[in-house]
Amino acid sequence: MQANQIRDALEQLRSAHAGTSTDAYVREALDRLGPPRRPGLGGPRDGVSLAPPEVARLIDHTQLAPDATDAAIQQLCTEARTYEFASVCVHPCYVPLASSALETAPVAVCTVIGFPHGANHPVTKAFETKQALEDGADEVDMVLPIGRLKSGHMEAVEADIRAVVEAAHDDVAGPRAQPPIVKVILETALLTDAEKAVACVAARRAGADFVKTSTGFASGGATAHDVALMRQIVGEALGVKAAGGVGSVDDVQRMVAHGATRIGASGGVSIMEGMTSETDY
Amino acid sequence: MQANQIRDALEQLRSAHAGTSTDAYVREALDRLGPPRRPGLGGPRDGVSLAPPEVARLIDHTQLAPDATDAAIQQLCTEARTYEFASVCVHPCYVPLASSALETAPVAVCTVIGFPHGANHPVTKAFETKQALEDGADEVDMVLPIGRLKSGHMEAVEADIRAVVEAAHDDVAGPRAQPPIVKVILETALLTDAEKAVACVAARRAGADFVKTSTGFASGGATAHDVALMRQIVGEALGVKAAGGVGSVDDVQRMVAHGATRIGASGGVSIMEGMTSETDY
Repeated sequence: MQANQIRDALEQLRSAHAGTSTDAYVREALDRLGPPRRPGLGGPRDGVSLAPPEVARLIDHTQLAPDATDAAIQQLCTEARTYEFASVCVHPCYVPLASSALETAPVAVCTVIGFPHGANHPVTKAFETKQALEDGADEVDMVLPIGRLKSGHMEAVEADIRAVVEAAHDDVAGPRAQPPIVKVILETALLTDAEKAVACVAARRAGADFVKTSTGFASGGATAHDVALMRQIVGEALGVKAAGGVGSVDDVQRMVAHGATRIGASGGVSIMEGMTSETDY
Repeated sequence: MQANQIRDALEQLRSAHAGTSTDAYVREALDRLGPPRRPGLGGPRDGVSLAPPEVARLIDHTQLAPDATDAAIQQLCTEARTYEFASVCVHPCYVPLASSALETAPVAVCTVIGFPHGANHPVTKAFETKQALEDGADEVDMVLPIGRLKSGHMEAVEADIRAVVEAAHDDVAGPRAQPPIVKVILETALLTDAEKAVACVAARRAGADFVKTSTGFASGGATAHDVALMRQIVGEALGVKAAGGVGSVDDVQRMVAHGATRIGASGGVSIMEGMTSETDY
């Protein structure tokens, strides 16, 4: 898909929600897409070839099955320590366990907020964020309110994200080396390209640190197209996390080539073993 | 499946979690199942034939799609008013809208807590409950912590449920005619029969008002077998809500025959129209 088509889609979104706050978000998305005839989205910026340790440092090693047990979380943490993944990503009820298991490891603890539907009250998301940070989380991946976005309430979407960002940035607890990171999950499988673009504008305005494609629980996950689109809208100031269906080294390289700076994957070990066997070969 | 098989499964669960709090929950479940050779579970208690208004008063008219818009919630409320369903069931961010739309209608507002994974911190579930009641909810359907249950932490499961029950029963806000109702979603598709049984014991001990089969977002929904099992364990003191895949009048009658006292359905209008056309015929 070309930037021109996304421009058209944004103009349609503006018409559909005429007279609402959507207008301002569409304008900003159009500005960030650049002038017409700009080279199309979707092409990799350059060839990417990452060594195993670089791949590992991109991966949020993820176990978000609703029936994941203590033992599964312990195993996840052991694997993360072995491969030195960027983080483990677990449900809030497992943050204390993961935080304790990784106390001396160079691996962050990431959790999820308002997951996976994003349709909670914003004050609940803020509360859940504070509790997670108090329990030892370093990063929070929040789901934006998808229905609010589709109803054209862009200011409400931005306020929802800001509630989490402020809860995280106000946090002063613990011996955390760096400020907490907030990632905003768009759930791209449920959005049009224009909605993805204005969602990125809202995340950027609200002060989030990353935008992220997917929860892994919708009908689709990360695509190179979506990563490129999100990267174009957020610029270089924010990270882009590709999550959902990223299961091989090739997937990782492709996502990075299109602008991803973090990868969410439940198959991190399999990705790393794939690299090792390739190297062996 | 017969009660004897469930007894065996409970004994196996007790062995698997020997030395934990699981033992007491297994004993209570065995007591409630009754002596061996009791007639098997699964047969309807009696023939059921409900008139349309009775069916309508059983139904929680449900719209929990993560991308449901304001317009979809408005339509849901209009339909609920027309048919006089028991409630509308919506995500927490839509409780104010539904509460306002149904202010003068004999239709309750139900919302969901820790939905659909149940893997939040208990204090977050309690906070979300209080906020929902303040926003106008009359009923809350919470998801129990499935992974904690599978890890054998039955006391933690009970405490998690109790946190929501206490938040609800402490509630004194608003012109509510009746105390808030708390339903506990087991997510039966992810549980063994023995786990379903001890989950019902935990819900009963924690003071919940209902047990409920499913979120509608797992691989399976309500079955007559599960409804009969849950009814047997909770006795007559609690309600049983069958949700997930209940899409016809026949489904409703079958669930009621096996012990359900509430039905969760997104296709309530279609169920009612089916009854009307049958009557016309």
